Amino acid sequence: MLKIGEIGWIEKDRPACGPRDAIVKPLALAPCTSDVHTVWEGAIGERHNMILGHEALGIVDEVGSEVRDFKPGDRVIVPAITPDWDSEAALRGFPSQTGGPLGGWKFSNFKDGVFAEFFHVNLADSNLAHLPEGMSLEAGVMLPDMLSTGFMGAENAKIEFGATVAVLGIGPVGLCGIAGARLGGAGRIFAVGTRPAAIKVAKEYGATDIVSYKEGNTVEQILNATGGAGVDAVIVAGGGAEVMMDAINVAKPGSVISNINYFGQGIGDEDLIPLPRVGWGFGIADKTLMTGLCPGGRVRMERLAEVVTHGRMDPSPMATHVFKGFDRLEEALLLMKEKPRDLIKPVVLVEQ
Amino acid sequence: MLKIGEIGWIEKDRPACGPRDAIVKPLALAPCTSDVHTVWEGAIGERHNMILGHEALGIVDEVGSEVRDFKPGDRVIVPAITPDWDSEAALRGFPSQTGGPLGGWKFSNFKDGVFAEFFHVNLADSNLAHLPEGMSLEAGVMLPDMLSTGFMGAENAKIEFGATVAVLGIGPVGLCGIAGARLGGAGRIFAVGTRPAAIKVAKEYGATDIVSYKEGNTVEQILNATGGAGVDAVIVAGGGAEVMMDAINVAKPGSVISNINYFGQGIGDEDLIPLPRVGWGFGIADKTLMTGLCPGGRVRMERLAEVVTHGRMDPSPMATHVFKGFDRLEEALLLMKEKPRDLIKPVVLVEQ
Amino acid sequence: MLKIGEIGWIEKDRPACGPRDAIVKPLALAPCTSDVHTVWEGAIGERHNMILGHEALGIVDEVGSEVRDFKPGDRVIVPAITPDWDSEAALRGFPSQTGGPLGGWKFSNFKDGVFAEFFHVNLADSNLAHLPEGMSLEAGVMLPDMLSTGFMGAENAKIEFGATVAVLGIGPVGLCGIAGARLGGAGRIFAVGTRPAAIKVAKEYGATDIVSYKEGNTVEQILNATGGAGVDAVIVAGGGAEVMMDAINVAKPGSVISNINYFGQGIGDEDLIPLPRVGWGFGIADKTLMTGLCPGGRVRMERLAEVVTHGRMDPSPMATHVFKGFDRLEEALLLMKEKPRDLIKPVVLVEQ
Amino acid sequence: MLKIGEIGWIEKDRPACGPRDAIVKPLALAPCTSDVHTVWEGAIGERHNMILGHEALGIVDEVGSEVRDFKPGDRVIVPAITPDWDSEAALRGFPSQTGGPLGGWKFSNFKDGVFAEFFHVNLADSNLAHLPEGMSLEAGVMLPDMLSTGFMGAENAKIEFGATVAVLGIGPVGLCGIAGARLGGAGRIFAVGTRPAAIKVAKEYGATDIVSYKEGNTVEQILNATGGAGVDAVIVAGGGAEVMMDAINVAKPGSVISNINYFGQGIGDEDLIPLPRVGWGFGIADKTLMTGLCPGGRVRMERLAEVVTHGRMDPSPMATHVFKGFDRLEEALLLMKEKPRDLIKPVVLVEQ
Repeated sequence: MLKIGEIGWIEKDRPACGPRDAIVKPLALAPCTSDVHTVWEGAIGERHNMILGHEALGIVDEVGSEVRDFKPGDRVIVPAITPDWDSEAALRGFPSQTGGPLGGWKFSNFKDGVFAEFFHVNLADSNLAHLPEGMSLEAGVMLPDMLSTGFMGAENAKIEFGATVAVLGIGPVGLCGIAGARLGGAGRIFAVGTRPAAIKVAKEYGATDIVSYKEGNTVEQILNATGGAGVDAVIVAGGGAEVMMDAINVAKPGSVISNINYFGQGIGDEDLIPLPRVGWGFGIADKTLMTGLCPGGRVRMERLAEVVTHGRMDPSPMATHVFKGFDRLEEALLLMKEKPRDLIKPVVLVEQ
Repeated sequence: MLKIGEIGWIEKDRPACGPRDAIVKPLALAPCTSDVHTVWEGAIGERHNMILGHEALGIVDEVGSEVRDFKPGDRVIVPAITPDWDSEAALRGFPSQTGGPLGGWKFSNFKDGVFAEFFHVNLADSNLAHLPEGMSLEAGVMLPDMLSTGFMGAENAKIEFGATVAVLGIGPVGLCGIAGARLGGAGRIFAVGTRPAAIKVAKEYGATDIVSYKEGNTVEQILNATGGAGVDAVIVAGGGAEVMMDAINVAKPGSVISNINYFGQGIGDEDLIPLPRVGWGFGIADKTLMTGLCPGGRVRMERLAEVVTHGRMDPSPMATHVFKGFDRLEEALLLMKEKPRDLIKPVVLVEQ
Repeated sequence: MLKIGEIGWIEKDRPACGPRDAIVKPLALAPCTSDVHTVWEGAIGERHNMILGHEALGIVDEVGSEVRDFKPGDRVIVPAITPDWDSEAALRGFPSQTGGPLGGWKFSNFKDGVFAEFFHVNLADSNLAHLPEGMSLEAGVMLPDMLSTGFMGAENAKIEFGATVAVLGIGPVGLCGIAGARLGGAGRIFAVGTRPAAIKVAKEYGATDIVSYKEGNTVEQILNATGGAGVDAVIVAGGGAEVMMDAINVAKPGSVISNINYFGQGIGDEDLIPLPRVGWGFGIADKTLMTGLCPGGRVRMERLAEVVTHGRMDPSPMATHVFKGFDRLEEALLLMKEKPRDLIKPVVLVEQ
Repeated sequence: MLKIGEIGWIEKDRPACGPRDAIVKPLALAPCTSDVHTVWEGAIGERHNMILGHEALGIVDEVGSEVRDFKPGDRVIVPAITPDWDSEAALRGFPSQTGGPLGGWKFSNFKDGVFAEFFHVNLADSNLAHLPEGMSLEAGVMLPDMLSTGFMGAENAKIEFGATVAVLGIGPVGLCGIAGARLGGAGRIFAVGTRPAAIKVAKEYGATDIVSYKEGNTVEQILNATGGAGVDAVIVAGGGAEVMMDAINVAKPGSVISNINYFGQGIGDEDLIPLPRVGWGFGIADKTLMTGLCPGGRVRMERLAEVVTHGRMDPSPMATHVFKGFDRLEEALLLMKEKPRDLIKPVVLVEQ
């Protein structure tokens, strides 16, 4: 990213490695919708000559003197979020917010990202995880952000066994929201979206009902399908600011709306996210609105790897477009921007 | 309430008593801001010839054949919210939403309220509580709604010991939010409001810092006072729809905003409650928005009575205007509408 | 049950139906290990001429005047636990304990059970659920106790996505604990048991590692397999009082031990359940011990039915022995007592 | 501590200061019952020539090169528990158990304690807190362990507003459990103990009923006082292994037993902690048993300091015996061992 609206390749010095840090070379990379928000919507504000990217598998190239559990040559999962685990917000229980709002999100936000020949990882022992033997790169590179964010959507939604869930948006994070809802014990799962490639995966991941705006108002469709009751939990995984209106209107009194959408734009001059007063039950209908940033760090990645290793969920069907070679990154990023109908997620495999 | 915007006395038949119900005569009554919303803002829609009121102490006049624990002559606390405890939403854990949104709120919403010579209570054994010996009527009548709602604000805010809390609004529910925050272990408590009578009680109830819009932007004042950090929890207890902007802007990344405000009006044609996109951390800053309707029922009332009986909190300073005689109810209600500066809560004591 | 240690058929009057109750005829019945505890261990104390059984599907034969949602002829799931939803413990959030310890467990405990031509269900609208079209009787009869109890074991264990879980005991409740752990998002699941029929189902339900005492100390095996770490959660689903020693010794510091075992006997004259002082971390190693009685009621049964209907879990493989005809109940019960190696759960189908 | 059963003064080198560490000189010190367990019961096993003590206020003498927020001369609160915040158990949410069971407890367990001229603090920025202006040393030295442990007892007990609580043991940790229960919103609080000095403080801290074994069986007294119901929560803060029997027997079905007692000895050859089978409701009466080790770290100490600063609780009445001068430490420790009747907690003030 050269500036808002413009991307290109730049030359930078190899980052320095502190005593608890690591320098990592990429093995597999994936562009994210939030990279698109960052560059073309300027969602987090201006950034100059910042390297993009926060989804990577890699090979450790160098470790600091205090790093105990990793050594050069290790194949690793690099979480999108690399908190300062010994800082205030982490001690309070909010590691993704260390050092300020979204502060655990360092790559392509507060420092250079992973779309580079070498990149820097803070607190290597706490933020890297070993890539398990036998996990494919296409599957593994979905863990740093897609699985972690999508599953958080389900976790925050406090899904009880057999509960009915609606997932709004079936991009890759939404699909992981569906998978997370199933993993969390949901019964019926409504998936709202239209793209056939994504619908196919949505069903594999546990969606029982596909809802399309082409068939009419999606809120009404879900209310009708539930006999007017609405759903126990909603995972908001896509859409503009107005999606919150649907999310709240489709939820029962006594429910959770769990947002995992990164809102790049609000409505009006005041840059608002609107809630519907009546649908929200005048503010007193026990409709809880949860938010969160993708959980990061080593234990999270190890746990997600366990989910995949033991066959609870297979991320690889999301890797619909696989590119080979570091130099095809730009192509992959632009693909993410254009979102052709058969795309779920592009992946770039880097020969090392 | 005769219709929206108009009140007056009407004559109705004494309500019938089902086998598990009770008919109660009022001992002490209190008008609520939501009565004002209901009549003059039409907040819950049109109602014709509905008796108002949902805050009462009473004397049992008649009980149904299956009622075990109450008998005529018993002095009782009548919760504002009287759920159907054996219905779907209660089994799901949301008793205040039984039978539809806000459905546990029956008095002066789905049936006649307590501003009557006799009123009907469903599920008497589950919804009435004995008024403890020695509790004053002025104190006791604060339990059915004020304490229950205000304390819920603190409960939902998940206050940890020593946490910093802001309470927006110091009407009687806000004051109970302050008391609830202190009871829940808060350290520093900011109270936002201006009325001297309420400020005095706010301090008695645990507020450590009083913030007034007259001294400048209240969000900035609290941010400055916390070194820019913001607060761990916000209890929203008053204000129009825009108060949610302040509530979210004053909260830390990683915090809870607990709404107990009954929003009578939204903004714009679409009747919206606005959230600030940036302040809300683009939807991903771990700022949770909790809502709820006043918890009702017998156990809740008994627990609140324990709080008062054991001297943990004294509600009586909120009863700033005490009227004697049932016929002074209209006067008390109009006082609630006018909100003179020295008013916190009017109470009507009824001789029985 | 005639008395402790003795069973037989007895003749009783048809139970009376109160206004909110139902009288139900059995469609499918299953004996439970707790029936065995009750009769042959006297675990809950003496009972005379009490009809056994608390796992049933049925057909409604009669409903009281206030029952709205059920009518004669409806096919229903009858939960093992039928709480008084409007009583004190339910209002406190513990419906299974209404009216005293285990008080929600009425069938074959505080009143006659379901092994009868007709049986009585209290609060029909809150305690019965419609049997979904297309659900087999063998599958459906596992919901009232097996799924509800086993899944509660997983719920109470607070399993995080990818966490490692050990399930001690692979009787039918343990198998449902395994299924519940997988449904709750567990990664690796150790199942401790030896019976081949159960091992087969354990694997189908998500167990990744089978541990047998025949291969050595089971605690050591699990500790070794986890590199000495132990597990994040333990579900205790079988064994005598000493099983708690293993359960606590196999758990990590910072973990949950979730008991769903009904302890029929303690150790020593003092009738104790022992915890290991050192393994329990001297009482301060953050090893939480959860307990609970099978959740009952209508919403629970509906939710479990959703789990089955949407293919999240299939209970039918547990029905290893299916008997046809009410008169074969005694045979089924004695089979449960003997526990032949190929038995998981006997089911009796009753022609209606 | 020279070895089990023997104490004395020893000469050691000043500890080395790593880049993120600090070296601190004591300002105020307090011996703990666990020091007594460690030396005279050998509760944690043999230790040779280990310096005791883990409750201290201090003055920073040296900081490592990466420490940002502290400098020599700063007056600090030193938590008893100083976790490795970037390690596995902390990432899992159990910082007190980092590096193995009780691993966050380093002082006088895995390294030399604070009863020294200089002591070493790991991760200074995460584990030290500034001592607020105006806080007395006697009050402040209660925060590192007494308040943190006692308050955790209340936190884990999940006390709801107005709930009834029993605190077993009124040593200093039990007194803080009482204060924590009140801070958490408890209504009635039973305190079980006999020593007049402690009873006086128990009442100041919120106990409403004092229960003494001299008046009969304490469980029966509490059951009688609650009409047979028992209590909603129990905090176990003293006693031998048998105290768990009382704790569970006095708790309602549907309750929490929160242990903060460090069990130095079990019963029998097998070193057991016994639970009563029947009182525990056969393992299925929803009686949850929580444990935990004192929460440590900077944010915890800052939060506790907020509690004290804002007058929510005053720890100073617990400092019944104040010694001046480092050389009087042994005297203070022996006093803790002897426990004269007027002792709550000895404190040693060190001139710096």
